Amino acid sequence: MEPLRIAIAGLGTVGSGTLKLLEKNNKLLEKRTGRRILVTAISAKNRTKKRDCSIDHLEWFDDPVGMAREANADVIVELIGGERDPAKSICETALGSGRHVVTANKALMATHGNELSSLAEKNTKFLNYEAAIAGGIPIVKALREGLSGNEIKRVYGVLNGTCNYILTEMRQQRKTFDEVLQEAQNLGYAEAEPSMDVDGIDAGQKLSLLASLAFGCRINFSGVYTEGIRRISLIDIDYAEELGYRIKLLGSARLTENGLEQRVYPCMVDQSFPIANVEGAYNAVVAIGDSVGDTVFQGLGAGSGPTASAVVADLVDIALERRAPIMGVSTNDLRSLPEAPISTHRGAYYVRLMVSDRPGVIADISAVFRDENISIESLIQHRRSVTEAVPVVMKMHECLEESMQKALSRIHHLDSVIETPTMVRIEDLN
Amino acid sequence: MEPLRIAIAGLGTVGSGTLKLLEKNNKLLEKRTGRRILVTAISAKNRTKKRDCSIDHLEWFDDPVGMAREANADVIVELIGGERDPAKSICETALGSGRHVVTANKALMATHGNELSSLAEKNTKFLNYEAAIAGGIPIVKALREGLSGNEIKRVYGVLNGTCNYILTEMRQQRKTFDEVLQEAQNLGYAEAEPSMDVDGIDAGQKLSLLASLAFGCRINFSGVYTEGIRRISLIDIDYAEELGYRIKLLGSARLTENGLEQRVYPCMVDQSFPIANVEGAYNAVVAIGDSVGDTVFQGLGAGSGPTASAVVADLVDIALERRAPIMGVSTNDLRSLPEAPISTHRGAYYVRLMVSDRPGVIADISAVFRDENISIESLIQHRRSVTEAVPVVMKMHECLEESMQKALSRIHHLDSVIETPTMVRIEDLN
Repeated sequence: MEPLRIAIAGLGTVGSGTLKLLEKNNKLLEKRTGRRILVTAISAKNRTKKRDCSIDHLEWFDDPVGMAREANADVIVELIGGERDPAKSICETALGSGRHVVTANKALMATHGNELSSLAEKNTKFLNYEAAIAGGIPIVKALREGLSGNEIKRVYGVLNGTCNYILTEMRQQRKTFDEVLQEAQNLGYAEAEPSMDVDGIDAGQKLSLLASLAFGCRINFSGVYTEGIRRISLIDIDYAEELGYRIKLLGSARLTENGLEQRVYPCMVDQSFPIANVEGAYNAVVAIGDSVGDTVFQGLGAGSGPTASAVVADLVDIALERRAPIMGVSTNDLRSLPEAPISTHRGAYYVRLMVSDRPGVIADISAVFRDENISIESLIQHRRSVTEAVPVVMKMHECLEESMQKALSRIHHLDSVIETPTMVRIEDLN
Repeated sequence: MEPLRIAIAGLGTVGSGTLKLLEKNNKLLEKRTGRRILVTAISAKNRTKKRDCSIDHLEWFDDPVGMAREANADVIVELIGGERDPAKSICETALGSGRHVVTANKALMATHGNELSSLAEKNTKFLNYEAAIAGGIPIVKALREGLSGNEIKRVYGVLNGTCNYILTEMRQQRKTFDEVLQEAQNLGYAEAEPSMDVDGIDAGQKLSLLASLAFGCRINFSGVYTEGIRRISLIDIDYAEELGYRIKLLGSARLTENGLEQRVYPCMVDQSFPIANVEGAYNAVVAIGDSVGDTVFQGLGAGSGPTASAVVADLVDIALERRAPIMGVSTNDLRSLPEAPISTHRGAYYVRLMVSDRPGVIADISAVFRDENISIESLIQHRRSVTEAVPVVMKMHECLEESMQKALSRIHHLDSVIETPTMVRIEDLN
């Protein structure tokens, strides 16, 4: 059989990792596909940069879009990243000129995935993006194929390794967010500009793709409600442990009577759930199907090896012509679902207030919650101090987000409440 | 597009679950495949048995082998079970008469999978068996497709839900093996003849399939070393917890310099590993790839819904003509690997001896281990009693299985050692 010829755009961590993996497992891949997977062309920023893989034998393109149009290749592998050009043009040009696309680009898929899917479908080309969600975990394949017998009820997960690493280190090493972030940046685990990760944007992009796959709806990244982990402090991590929870940045999507919920926020999850024990740089996705029940998929969410693993699996699918509708069903069948606003969220809450320790404080706070119809399940007040602010921690019974926000806003204005109240949602995973 | 016509042999838990799932998610499956999946024929033991799904509109066959030969069907779904006829004949007949096969039958695949694969390949027919391993977890798809870029280093898992349920209940409810087994039988979680489960045979069958997929070798079920969980007592479960471990019936396969290791035995795993926290009826499989690192796949390992989910996913693959080599590579390329005998196992060990509490006991025991070049890492002796036997628990440094067996045999013959020594391997999962 003819070799599958591929051209790679971008030779950063993932690009060079892919190149090396294709070389290392060359024989094995030929056994698995019955044909050779052959890199024919390459495009990157800097041709002469020192790399630990040889590219001398490959056709070089200065312009990746030109490569997408002209390369002697069946597949263009887009590993440049970013939702704008050249990534977008590369994919459009490749699909428009009869080439398949494999991409690891969650930003591009989250923002332009609907149009790209239609274009790929129109041209009966592959648009594979396993590496765009949760790195090495074959979750696209699981949702699109392995669990295809199910109506998916909910999909949630730890989708950002940087945040999970930071939260894990904070808890285990007893360090502040800023300290761990600094260390992570020094180690290369976090970007110099960490906003995409720590503000939950990266997780939101992945979640929008998972939701589309799970519920057969159009990708709606702008409909993802997003909060990051900057406001999580060590004291809340400690209280979470005391209450039997663990704080995770969770991305979660489900269909409710109010519409499609797509949410990324730090929350407390019961320690007995598998997701609570996903630590460090690991990602995990839980898919709940009507027939299969809860399934958990865990693995490394980023890095050269895991991401290259996903890219190569996508190439193997193309080599064997294993097709699936790009978002699980034909793009014409994708639904446009209304967004469930965060104000309609119902759940339990953890609230921590820093108060000056004087008579009547608890009475004032309780009155506000009572007025908003929120009942307190438990209250912890450990430390006492005459000079400093005292933490008051409350676990609230299930209530409406809108009521909680109103209550917190009123409480913030009480004289005896010193800092902005801290609220962390307690996530019901049942 | 033409409907995919299927005939189902066997209407037990899984068969009727499959029938119901195909009906319930009918529309969804049509969206996902672009065609209808239509049950046309059925064969079961008892035509008139009361069922919660209607079979009146389906062609009935008394003889399932006849159905495999004559039914108006593209696919025969074999859900009768067992390694012998009729299951074997059904699959052979179907493949031989130009029909695809989907089966949930681990016993059949473990014992006759090599010949059936060759037959299917020769006839370019599908032989899909996702439901045969770990119920609803799409692990065949993960190994054969999702992780296809990797050389797999090791695959291990909790592969038998009955055993995992028993071990979990023993620990959590503080009950003996016999008590929990009895309860499980009353609840229908365990068979009246529980040997297939509790003696590790079922897990061994699944492991032989995982090993074949992971390492591209012929299925070698008779090469699986198997121990069950009957000898695990509550006292060992307690000591495991004290030492930071949890006892799991693990199936594990890897390539070593001594050949292919395929082992099923109860062992202690460090509580920090995901596999240690897989509880109750859940299964989990960990696949370690050279590129992706550790990946964990968890879900329900048995039952109507999870198994039907896997069967239907196999049918969807057939409907969309998504092909993969049956054991990951062409049957001609499957290797015959030498078996690594259990005597060559190296690892740490937990040993519990019941001794009469008199001077010199520990000295005698230590001397035997010293003679066999086994060093004691730690020793626990909590309880003391003048009348009864006293447990002495030792954690041994890594040593050779052969030496350990020799030592235990000699220790068993010491006068002060009252019961047969209990040994549980401590599994290194790094």
